[in-house]
Amino acid sequence: MRATLMYGAGDVRVEDVPDAHLIEPTDALVSVTRAAICGSDLWPYKSMEPTDSGRRMGHEFIGVVEAVGSYVRTIKAGELVLSPFLWSDGTCLFCREGLPSECLHGGRYGWDDVDGGQGEAVRVPQADGTLVALPVAEDDALMPSLLTLTDVMGTGHHAAVAADVGAGKTVAVVGDGAVGLCGVLAAKRLGAEQIILLGHNAERISLGQEFGATDVVRERGDDAVERVRELTGGFGPHSVLECVGLEQAVVTALEIARPGGAIGRVGVPEHDTTPTSIAFWKNASMAGGPAPVRAYIDELLPDVLEGRIEPGRVFDQTGTLDEVPDGYRAMNDREVLKFQIAF
Amino acid sequence: MRATLMYGAGDVRVEDVPDAHLIEPTDALVSVTRAAICGSDLWPYKSMEPTDSGRRMGHEFIGVVEAVGSYVRTIKAGELVLSPFLWSDGTCLFCREGLPSECLHGGRYGWDDVDGGQGEAVRVPQADGTLVALPVAEDDALMPSLLTLTDVMGTGHHAAVAADVGAGKTVAVVGDGAVGLCGVLAAKRLGAEQIILLGHNAERISLGQEFGATDVVRERGDDAVERVRELTGGFGPHSVLECVGLEQAVVTALEIARPGGAIGRVGVPEHDTTPTSIAFWKNASMAGGPAPVRAYIDELLPDVLEGRIEPGRVFDQTGTLDEVPDGYRAMNDREVLKFQIAF
Repeated sequence: MRATLMYGAGDVRVEDVPDAHLIEPTDALVSVTRAAICGSDLWPYKSMEPTDSGRRMGHEFIGVVEAVGSYVRTIKAGELVLSPFLWSDGTCLFCREGLPSECLHGGRYGWDDVDGGQGEAVRVPQADGTLVALPVAEDDALMPSLLTLTDVMGTGHHAAVAADVGAGKTVAVVGDGAVGLCGVLAAKRLGAEQIILLGHNAERISLGQEFGATDVVRERGDDAVERVRELTGGFGPHSVLECVGLEQAVVTALEIARPGGAIGRVGVPEHDTTPTSIAFWKNASMAGGPAPVRAYIDELLPDVLEGRIEPGRVFDQTGTLDEVPDGYRAMNDREVLKFQIAF
Repeated sequence: MRATLMYGAGDVRVEDVPDAHLIEPTDALVSVTRAAICGSDLWPYKSMEPTDSGRRMGHEFIGVVEAVGSYVRTIKAGELVLSPFLWSDGTCLFCREGLPSECLHGGRYGWDDVDGGQGEAVRVPQADGTLVALPVAEDDALMPSLLTLTDVMGTGHHAAVAADVGAGKTVAVVGDGAVGLCGVLAAKRLGAEQIILLGHNAERISLGQEFGATDVVRERGDDAVERVRELTGGFGPHSVLECVGLEQAVVTALEIARPGGAIGRVGVPEHDTTPTSIAFWKNASMAGGPAPVRAYIDELLPDVLEGRIEPGRVFDQTGTLDEVPDGYRAMNDREVLKFQIAF
């Protein structure tokens, strides 16, 4: 079969790899119908050391179940399924507590003999715990929005939950990438009254406004902090969603938060340390991390199926598997917000 | 009148100062009957640059109201009152939200023409919002425990609240100082099932066990992390109370927290940065800061008055105002856990 491998920074190739196949009795074999490139795939694209063997890429996909192992009970061959970006058993201590990202028997796609999602097929471990059957056809118009439930929409929602967004609150979203825009949608969905989007890209900001952003702050650094304060009666927002992961973005998130406010961070941290005192002296909290996306699907899926949210609008380019290397380049060059792969 | 001033690291003096007196119509003049030295007073004791003018010290006190300004309605002359370590109006946006530590018209004792608490009398600004009348006599045996409600017990409680302590949870308390010990008491009071105290001082640990610690970890650094994991089924505690403020203690708190756990920090940070990724990758939260002690007094006071908690046991030395300089020295040398001043 064909799949995407990264051999080093800027070096993405689509190549023949061994066909995906069942190994464990808890596996499902899924033939991929849609997949995506994630903003987090761009970190190795910027910095990965060259290797000879390459690294299998991709963790956002929807597909058709071709076969299941003998222990699989709820997922059946022929079903259209979506997978969260991490696989999990659904039964361990952490899964039962709503934190499948910490599943005791879970893991990541593209590692340890598990296929990546940017390929023709994937062996999905812990299929019963991981996969969610979809009640639509594989060419349904909802497919882009459903695809966001594998990662970005769940991650934006996690930022909002970690930032304690609720009815009537003021919210700021740092970052106008796909996760930030889904964060706007999540904040709106959770009842936020004011949603300030911090970003610089005209098209992304425009989509953010359609998603529910009430205000836009295009400034950076101290000017951004001042502008957000002005927009929030001088105090800052109750909730801040940090959707970038760079030090400057985290510091801005800390600085704009209202005293007693909450920062939800989902941007993968690309810096070693965070200032200690900014949050302390104003009793602001910081929470978040890799989103427990599987736990959010039950809540978000009906809103997608019934058209109340349309997060799939973050995909502004669709291509074939062979076009994936150029999709990485285009996303890295910020020509494309998010690239969808149609098989 | 006589009051305590600090002139530099290690240089504390009790001297004559101008008599405290009413200035604003919202003030009360309080004649101090009990006061205390705070662990946070030791930071300037260790590091303050020498000055000629000195700095007024102290923010934990109980006293008798001598006079009130013309706007004061609820506090009356002759009442025995306790003050939280910050003064606050009780009516602003943040006070109404339960965060009087961020009061828009509040402030700190010992600054801006407001007396310190380690002196014979204090002008208390915003008396109606700040002071709490006590239904006991000034020589009541409960006085040490009541005195802890001005700061340490409220601060330990804040750490527990910020760490989301609740019924049946496992808790670790980093630090066996007076705040840490009050944190143990607070965790027990909030229903924690297992309370692990991390500390090194035999007497303090012994008191911590009487306050409710079920386990003690005397190791430091990586060994402490490993020991806490062993005591918590390999996962770490749900809630961690960081009651020190030094970098090593904060890192230990981050490392021992269970995935999805919560760190409540009240130790005044003495370090500039905190590692970014430890909490992120396991979705642990961090909250806390200067405790909104005034907001907790209504909840904690009945437990003290009715003898259900006895936080005043953290005071292991009582002296006169003239003995305060030696009290600082003894606390700094860790000969004394917490020094109480009886007038």
